[in-house]
Amino acid sequence: MSVNRDILITEVALRDGSHAINHQYTVEQVVNVARALDEANVPYIEVTHGDGLAGSSLQYGLSRTDEMELIEAAVSVCKQAKIAVLLLPGIGTIKHLNAAAKLGVGMARIGTHVTEADVSAQHIARSKELGLETIGFLMMSHMASPNKIVEQAKLMESYGADAVYIFDSAGAMLPKEVAERIRALKQSVGIDVGFHGHNNLSLAMANTLAAIEEGATRIDGSVRCLGAGAGNTQTEVLIAVLERMGICTGVDLYKMMDLAEDIVAPILEVPQEITKNSLVLGYAGVYSSFRLHAERAAKKFGIDSRDILIELGKRKVVGGQEDMIIDIAAEISKRNSRGGNQFAF
Amino acid sequence: MSVNRDILITEVALRDGSHAINHQYTVEQVVNVARALDEANVPYIEVTHGDGLAGSSLQYGLSRTDEMELIEAAVSVCKQAKIAVLLLPGIGTIKHLNAAAKLGVGMARIGTHVTEADVSAQHIARSKELGLETIGFLMMSHMASPNKIVEQAKLMESYGADAVYIFDSAGAMLPKEVAERIRALKQSVGIDVGFHGHNNLSLAMANTLAAIEEGATRIDGSVRCLGAGAGNTQTEVLIAVLERMGICTGVDLYKMMDLAEDIVAPILEVPQEITKNSLVLGYAGVYSSFRLHAERAAKKFGIDSRDILIELGKRKVVGGQEDMIIDIAAEISKRNSRGGNQFAF
Repeated sequence: MSVNRDILITEVALRDGSHAINHQYTVEQVVNVARALDEANVPYIEVTHGDGLAGSSLQYGLSRTDEMELIEAAVSVCKQAKIAVLLLPGIGTIKHLNAAAKLGVGMARIGTHVTEADVSAQHIARSKELGLETIGFLMMSHMASPNKIVEQAKLMESYGADAVYIFDSAGAMLPKEVAERIRALKQSVGIDVGFHGHNNLSLAMANTLAAIEEGATRIDGSVRCLGAGAGNTQTEVLIAVLERMGICTGVDLYKMMDLAEDIVAPILEVPQEITKNSLVLGYAGVYSSFRLHAERAAKKFGIDSRDILIELGKRKVVGGQEDMIIDIAAEISKRNSRGGNQFAF
Repeated sequence: MSVNRDILITEVALRDGSHAINHQYTVEQVVNVARALDEANVPYIEVTHGDGLAGSSLQYGLSRTDEMELIEAAVSVCKQAKIAVLLLPGIGTIKHLNAAAKLGVGMARIGTHVTEADVSAQHIARSKELGLETIGFLMMSHMASPNKIVEQAKLMESYGADAVYIFDSAGAMLPKEVAERIRALKQSVGIDVGFHGHNNLSLAMANTLAAIEEGATRIDGSVRCLGAGAGNTQTEVLIAVLERMGICTGVDLYKMMDLAEDIVAPILEVPQEITKNSLVLGYAGVYSSFRLHAERAAKKFGIDSRDILIELGKRKVVGGQEDMIIDIAAEISKRNSRGGNQFAF
């Protein structure tokens, strides 16, 4: 079916939403959701472990069902939608990408930390060889300046990516920060530009509209907000808002509303809302994996874990640097005992 | 305590949130929430039936506890916050306002439909005589043009209001619609301008930021999104976002996060999320009271209730005109049988 679409929506509930249900998707759930999304004319549906291909592990959480089985099932029920897979180099490998391609996926999304696009060169190139539509993601985009983002995006473009996305992985960006980054990309790359938001600061929709206003044409959403953290831009709501603005996604609003209510809501163990935990991660701008470490350190030093997370955000600490948490906790504890109080952000 | 505040927050969970729990607030709940809000340094706390003073009725829902008892309890535990009451002329009267004033409230908020400010003249005047800070609300502001809103706001200003608010009662407004209305007000009235949003289109925060950017200095929020429809701008998240933007509310972020999690979340029977019902009301821009009528009519005529609600929104139908629902349902049914399909918005 040929449809005019101003904006290309990628539904991520079957990948990012995997985090929210501890990677417990069943084949039946994936089939029901994917079929309904396909019938609603969503063009892209991402299906993978929350941390991408081969994410199932003790470290990232074990999947209940083998993701290749879920991908195959999703491919089998979609008439028009392309199934997309996420690959984070370092977690997944070229081998996993080859295997997914054999199952009939139509898109690969290759993500790296916002300053490390160079690790995606082989994966993007291989994805293109496999004939897949290929997207490069810059994760934790709030941690880099517009100039840095342009530099990194150009790398992904040079490797052959068809589009590049800004990922607000921590749900930490303000609309103006999204706008200036998308604007810089639109002025500098020749490929499509996209945006993936999280709602930890209740700004997923605002940031999405800011991105679209600056020329982003690919947007990620999660139906019923079924995504990590406080969830993503809520897909069925986005469709409604864009219809009101006269922007065409080609997606059927009523069908999206129905599937959100009848098929997706029952999958969520707890409805998505902005809790203390998700808010503090967005406010601090840090990885969710830091939270438990920070809570342990806070208890040990008798301080507020939020002060640790905010300081981690200020110092732009990334995954792998968890050992800094104890140092920071000790510093805060010392500062508090000298009569100082919480760090200003 | 003297605090510099760029933005004056009014917390509405103990009024607008009353809708979300079928007006079942207990004295203990109100005392716990009001005390914690006061300790977090929130300047205004609204406590009334969801439909304002004297709203407790078969038509609007019976309160579990007499609102005067709730108001008195809230006043008794607040050291710095002013308790505000909502009065919708036609539901509440001057007599109820007098009674609330005697209990020690510090603010009255007088609301009318956006085109009917003239019915608030006596109530605003009386509120000022009682020595109360007095706010005029223009409800369902999405239904009127900026010019009409300016005309109506000027009436409220002439009656003595200290501030005038745009109320996006149906959660139907887009950021640009909020911006142009606030801008028009700021150019035309000499009193403070405020904004009250709902999150039915996931735009409460975006609309709030648009209002602030155009000069609004009074903002309503509901902690943990405990408000009608999909809830309001989430107060503790708003505090966090404004801190990130360097805008001072004088409210303690950590205390707000804690009270949201520990005191307010347990009050909500179901966490707030954007459901099919709340989304369709925001998309159509109609009163929530129309929904059940539309569902009944849809069943009778074998059509989709959403088509009715959207048509009601297009025709700007207001409360009291419920008899139009059957006419519209009949028309849609006839149109469908001639092979037409759903109305375009």
